Amino acid sequence: MKLARFLAKGRVHQGVYREGLLLDEAGEAHRPEDVTWLLPFTPGKVLGVALNYADHAEELGLARPEEPALFWKPNTSLLPHKGVVLYPKGARFVHYEVELAVVVGRLMKKVKAKDALDYVLGYTIANDLVARDYVKNTFRPPIRAKGRDTFLPLGPFLVVEEVEDPQNLWLRAYVNGELRQEGHTSRMLYSVAELLEFISEFMTLEPYDVLLTGTPKGISQVRPGDVMRLEIEGLGALENPIEEEP
Amino acid sequence: MKLARFLAKGRVHQGVYREGLLLDEAGEAHRPEDVTWLLPFTPGKVLGVALNYADHAEELGLARPEEPALFWKPNTSLLPHKGVVLYPKGARFVHYEVELAVVVGRLMKKVKAKDALDYVLGYTIANDLVARDYVKNTFRPPIRAKGRDTFLPLGPFLVVEEVEDPQNLWLRAYVNGELRQEGHTSRMLYSVAELLEFISEFMTLEPYDVLLTGTPKGISQVRPGDVMRLEIEGLGALENPIEEEP
Repeated sequence: MKLARFLAKGRVHQGVYREGLLLDEAGEAHRPEDVTWLLPFTPGKVLGVALNYADHAEELGLARPEEPALFWKPNTSLLPHKGVVLYPKGARFVHYEVELAVVVGRLMKKVKAKDALDYVLGYTIANDLVARDYVKNTFRPPIRAKGRDTFLPLGPFLVVEEVEDPQNLWLRAYVNGELRQEGHTSRMLYSVAELLEFISEFMTLEPYDVLLTGTPKGISQVRPGDVMRLEIEGLGALENPIEEEP
Repeated sequence: MKLARFLAKGRVHQGVYREGLLLDEAGEAHRPEDVTWLLPFTPGKVLGVALNYADHAEELGLARPEEPALFWKPNTSLLPHKGVVLYPKGARFVHYEVELAVVVGRLMKKVKAKDALDYVLGYTIANDLVARDYVKNTFRPPIRAKGRDTFLPLGPFLVVEEVEDPQNLWLRAYVNGELRQEGHTSRMLYSVAELLEFISEFMTLEPYDVLLTGTPKGISQVRPGDVMRLEIEGLGALENPIEEEP
């Protein structure tokens, strides 16, 4: 099931996406182009994992991490499908990153990998944007690079009960219609289940917490005026334009 | 005014601390030793700043950061006054860190340093605990080291309208009654106002977001059985015992 939240005629709706239409809680159908998309749910904390695909680590010239290299995306960086990403003034190296986002469904504390997927509510697409201009400070988190307002488009749907195997999905990113990034979740260094075990060993995960699972090879620069379209098999497409920060 | 939240006879109270007593919303007095302390408010996102005192950077043998070295503390790491810090199994280097915590009062977006303190609601004490065992991965945030459950005692009060100058406060940390850490907020490398300008340039700060402003020289190891007592001038004392993780 593809759950969505959206504004139509000034009201917030929670609904389901089916055959190209958004059905609201009363069963009324809305055309996607007539609504304003909202985040499909309200995320708790959001954690990311750097360099979780070997081919991406290689393209950055970085070694594979010895353990999952966690970082944080603040909730103020979240942006729904179709929302405008603001390009930082003076930045030169802004990259999209298509990532499978895992949504936690139940409280997780020291959960083993073999059980971890039972705690997952669903999946969505994340665009883990980064301004690499600010990744010079290597001994501490690049919060300035990753945590900017609008730097975390997420959606369009919360997909529940449909993904059979999170390690068997194609990911693709297009910029202005051109395929730029392609990968497959089977190539993660740490699987979704392993990441959830690693994190929940020391940090309680709560319902609606989100885990971004890393991006494959194929990052490249985007500029104001560009439109990013991120697709993951079975999860739809997350589209966001970029504009200069006012 | 020193605002507090606490449980007494099974009910949550919001009150004021005055002359050694907690006055609840009905004006009834409770003795601190009869209540269970809660966090004095519900924090939004919590950001920390590493190496923000020159003497502390020196004791760790690290260079002064060229810009504020931000990191994240998840809300699941929060712990009230008197709450039990859980010592991770197998850890060897767990350090307390006394820090002035700044509580945001109004939405902040690209606020300049000269105006930043007008957006502050109040101050409290934070214990930015860290398991240095896990600080080996130097190119990414040590979320595993800093973000553990119970690794962020905060309180006991939210102190509003009393702190005249956040850069003129003594900080002290005692372990089992022995003074271990002492510093003064005048020695921050980046002042509270400068930090708020730096962060709000790229990240919206919202009411009840919290900024931890770094720790001075004097960190040392603590063990299960120890009791940490952190004091900041005018903000009271934050006390937490440590026990082995079950």
